[in-house]
Amino acid sequence: MVVRNPLKLAARSARVDRTIVRLTNGAAFGADTLAICAGPCSVESAEQLDACAKAVHESGANVLRGGAFKPRTSPYAFQGLGERGLEFLRTTADRYGMAVVTEVLDPRDVALVASHADMLQIGARNMQNFPLLRAAGESGKPVMLKRGIAATVDEWLLAAEYILLSGNDKVVLCERGVRSFDTSTRNLLDLSVVPLLAGLTHLPVVVDPSHGTGVARLVEPMALAAVAAGADGLLVEVHPDPASAASDGHQSLTPDEFGILMGRLGSLAAAVGRRLPAATLAA
Amino acid sequence: MVVRNPLKLAARSARVDRTIVRLTNGAAFGADTLAICAGPCSVESAEQLDACAKAVHESGANVLRGGAFKPRTSPYAFQGLGERGLEFLRTTADRYGMAVVTEVLDPRDVALVASHADMLQIGARNMQNFPLLRAAGESGKPVMLKRGIAATVDEWLLAAEYILLSGNDKVVLCERGVRSFDTSTRNLLDLSVVPLLAGLTHLPVVVDPSHGTGVARLVEPMALAAVAAGADGLLVEVHPDPASAASDGHQSLTPDEFGILMGRLGSLAAAVGRRLPAATLAA
Amino acid sequence: MVVRNPLKLAARSARVDRTIVRLTNGAAFGADTLAICAGPCSVESAEQLDACAKAVHESGANVLRGGAFKPRTSPYAFQGLGERGLEFLRTTADRYGMAVVTEVLDPRDVALVASHADMLQIGARNMQNFPLLRAAGESGKPVMLKRGIAATVDEWLLAAEYILLSGNDKVVLCERGVRSFDTSTRNLLDLSVVPLLAGLTHLPVVVDPSHGTGVARLVEPMALAAVAAGADGLLVEVHPDPASAASDGHQSLTPDEFGILMGRLGSLAAAVGRRLPAATLAA
Amino acid sequence: MVVRNPLKLAARSARVDRTIVRLTNGAAFGADTLAICAGPCSVESAEQLDACAKAVHESGANVLRGGAFKPRTSPYAFQGLGERGLEFLRTTADRYGMAVVTEVLDPRDVALVASHADMLQIGARNMQNFPLLRAAGESGKPVMLKRGIAATVDEWLLAAEYILLSGNDKVVLCERGVRSFDTSTRNLLDLSVVPLLAGLTHLPVVVDPSHGTGVARLVEPMALAAVAAGADGLLVEVHPDPASAASDGHQSLTPDEFGILMGRLGSLAAAVGRRLPAATLAA
Repeated sequence: MVVRNPLKLAARSARVDRTIVRLTNGAAFGADTLAICAGPCSVESAEQLDACAKAVHESGANVLRGGAFKPRTSPYAFQGLGERGLEFLRTTADRYGMAVVTEVLDPRDVALVASHADMLQIGARNMQNFPLLRAAGESGKPVMLKRGIAATVDEWLLAAEYILLSGNDKVVLCERGVRSFDTSTRNLLDLSVVPLLAGLTHLPVVVDPSHGTGVARLVEPMALAAVAAGADGLLVEVHPDPASAASDGHQSLTPDEFGILMGRLGSLAAAVGRRLPAATLAA
Repeated sequence: MVVRNPLKLAARSARVDRTIVRLTNGAAFGADTLAICAGPCSVESAEQLDACAKAVHESGANVLRGGAFKPRTSPYAFQGLGERGLEFLRTTADRYGMAVVTEVLDPRDVALVASHADMLQIGARNMQNFPLLRAAGESGKPVMLKRGIAATVDEWLLAAEYILLSGNDKVVLCERGVRSFDTSTRNLLDLSVVPLLAGLTHLPVVVDPSHGTGVARLVEPMALAAVAAGADGLLVEVHPDPASAASDGHQSLTPDEFGILMGRLGSLAAAVGRRLPAATLAA
Repeated sequence: MVVRNPLKLAARSARVDRTIVRLTNGAAFGADTLAICAGPCSVESAEQLDACAKAVHESGANVLRGGAFKPRTSPYAFQGLGERGLEFLRTTADRYGMAVVTEVLDPRDVALVASHADMLQIGARNMQNFPLLRAAGESGKPVMLKRGIAATVDEWLLAAEYILLSGNDKVVLCERGVRSFDTSTRNLLDLSVVPLLAGLTHLPVVVDPSHGTGVARLVEPMALAAVAAGADGLLVEVHPDPASAASDGHQSLTPDEFGILMGRLGSLAAAVGRRLPAATLAA
Repeated sequence: MVVRNPLKLAARSARVDRTIVRLTNGAAFGADTLAICAGPCSVESAEQLDACAKAVHESGANVLRGGAFKPRTSPYAFQGLGERGLEFLRTTADRYGMAVVTEVLDPRDVALVASHADMLQIGARNMQNFPLLRAAGESGKPVMLKRGIAATVDEWLLAAEYILLSGNDKVVLCERGVRSFDTSTRNLLDLSVVPLLAGLTHLPVVVDPSHGTGVARLVEPMALAAVAAGADGLLVEVHPDPASAASDGHQSLTPDEFGILMGRLGSLAAAVGRRLPAATLAA
């Protein structure tokens, strides 16, 4: 067995109870009620974002996701709307009583993003960007820490430890697939980490089946599987018109497909003792 | 997008309906009712096997799994009981109305194994052992084809094609985890292939969460996740005394743990339109 | 540090001197003089094989490689000429004083292949085909054991142990690349295993830069690198007309390219205390 | 074949000649004379650094490497001396006529590091830290861009493109191993990228066999192999007392071992038409 680096703050043994990370609109990660984060990959316009938010809200999502600062493999790809995108996210989410989670790429932008968002997302490429982890931690905002594309669970938890060390204990881990030798899917979604992490840490864990598979048709079954495995929530890309999306259209659900997913998720969640957010129950 | 080798017989388009592989005791792979294969990694003795079979039968399993010919990384590890193990499997399974699935390693042993078993298992190490695939196909017996440890979905389906070409269409695919860079789990269980294969082939797919994780504590959540993702059945290692098992004890469930898994699986299966085998319903 | 399975016969400590595997034509693996195995991926005809053998012999190769039984991912791909291919190999190699190394896929074919070849090749797909390893070992012939596509060094050495246990100590290990996440090359050639194995085992190690890269342009630099790292020989695919090859044309060198490689290899080998086979020195 | 993102500035076709990146002390990357970067993993003290620099200079190294800002998996590991470390690097390198390459982790530190170093290193963890790439590019300093731990060649070149887009064309690529399933080595050193990159880009490529293997005993053979494969230089960890090193002691050479490596490298380099830096020739 491999010797692990010692965890202190993130270790399961560091707390009696598992951590529940709560956002101001009531969304919670780690509670019986799941956190459902949905929205477009990139914020493209106020109209696109509103169409998306309205639809996912009606289907029961309680956190609006969307990228304003986009990390793109190519410098020639769409880099996001920046501050305007953040403003659209805030305004739109408020319209529907949703919280906002959005990515921050640069420690110099943490204060700006934190002034608009309810939760800062650290992307897979930045999982070991230690200055960014520290800056995000020091903001005091809840942080969603995505797993690096080839990060071990040990490395991921130590990255979380960097955030926790700043005194900020509102950290949510997000599994989004790891790099694989098989190009049939964009990444290899590693759902085993969900129950594995439950034994190693008190932090909540969500799953992103959109990046985890890269194929729209696989998002629903893998979302169901994630909740069956014990995930505390989901991060799902939804776009009103995937074919025209500025990024990741091939893995985005339409609002209708998302609605179907949420319907099926309700039954499955009940079978494993979880609930969808209240908005859904009312629907 | 990568150009695939053309599939003929295994392709989804080769058949109108999805294939259902039925064993003589009524166990079916690909039907609404799941196939639940359970038993020890290795057949060690008549007593060990009976204790195991009795327990998993009572919990609702309808196929007895167990290795008589064991492929072991080290030549100094237990290599299995061979023909005596096959006899124990047949006798024990008949006692409880179960079918037998067991591995065959050598084309020269196919007739022998086929004379005792209801289903031949081709292990991960032999997924591209083409003489063995042909011999298993020619036996006319149902074949469970495990995915190679680093096989792409394309390669796996082409391996199935070797079996189908012999005129034997009773092939079940088994996902059992692929090799990973992270040693936290023994393998990386790739559940995304379950819905992916549903679009590519008409063949049924089962999941082995025991080898897929290598950690007993992760077997139940990943078994639930597999069925949520659409798996047609499970392959689970159960041992009356995991600590004393001749192989794979660390990933084996006790009979009690298996019973709990089956209880939870019943509720979850119903939420996705599946059922456990009849024996369970009667329990 | 991971606990390894204990090696007995293959361990470096099992012998005072490193093993030298000698073929009947004087080719040696593990000596100061390198073993240079070259030839086509598949034996296609007597004419193709003779053109190839003549050219690689003139450039200094001392072992003729070529496949008569071909393991192919798809059952619809060319499967080799079988026994006729073996006869072509024997006749052609004898014409030029070369030895023959060729793959065997099926334990039932070991005697046949051994009756024509000087060395049996176990391919990557069969590295853990234990009945085949035992049968090859029992043949008493030298065996070239290719590394499995995702085999650890530990697993590879234990596979060699299966052969050694039969009393046959003429085993040569062949690194041919492992599976990678990057499709820029066919496989990821892992040259670090060459010096690593020198510390772990007394067995000689050769490198196959043709399968290891899958790109003809990369074969020469990686062949040089392999010898610089300490390899005891090379396995190189050469075809008189790569564009028309029945298999692996994109990674085959032309006879002229192979001649250039051998010229450069002569200088480099001298710099690390090795020599090319005598035929080359005479050229 | 996978469709690549289009490269503009980094593509081989963007320039007639291959780029040579020259540092102020005359060290050059991409010329017939190799660039030899050596030094400790971490700068620990003025004394340690001087002992190291003196020794590697005498053996022929022309660039001093050493970490002042250290990216560490665990927040509890030594994080580097920061600005004091930079000052030690500058003073020590000047004493021996060496250039300085050192890592920068944070875009806010680029100006500080650039004021002391001749070349900025972007580490594997930050290969897709786009704000850092842009800041390093805008500094105008030469940049050594290490490959990410699971980065494809395509992604790596696009990361270089971010730097080039700032108008800074002094970029050197550094292969340092990718993540593997085999824990026998720390990473899997991918030497095939050396000749592969020569066809894809005009930028020079160096190899880091210390991180690439993580095992001191493997550094020399892989350094030789790297140059045989066409590398334009090396990055080697050397420590006066590896057993007491603050980081990476197990992969550091002693000064004596480094001297032996350089002696052997001289002969090998000549065989492939390269030279060691002038200091060595004088030695």
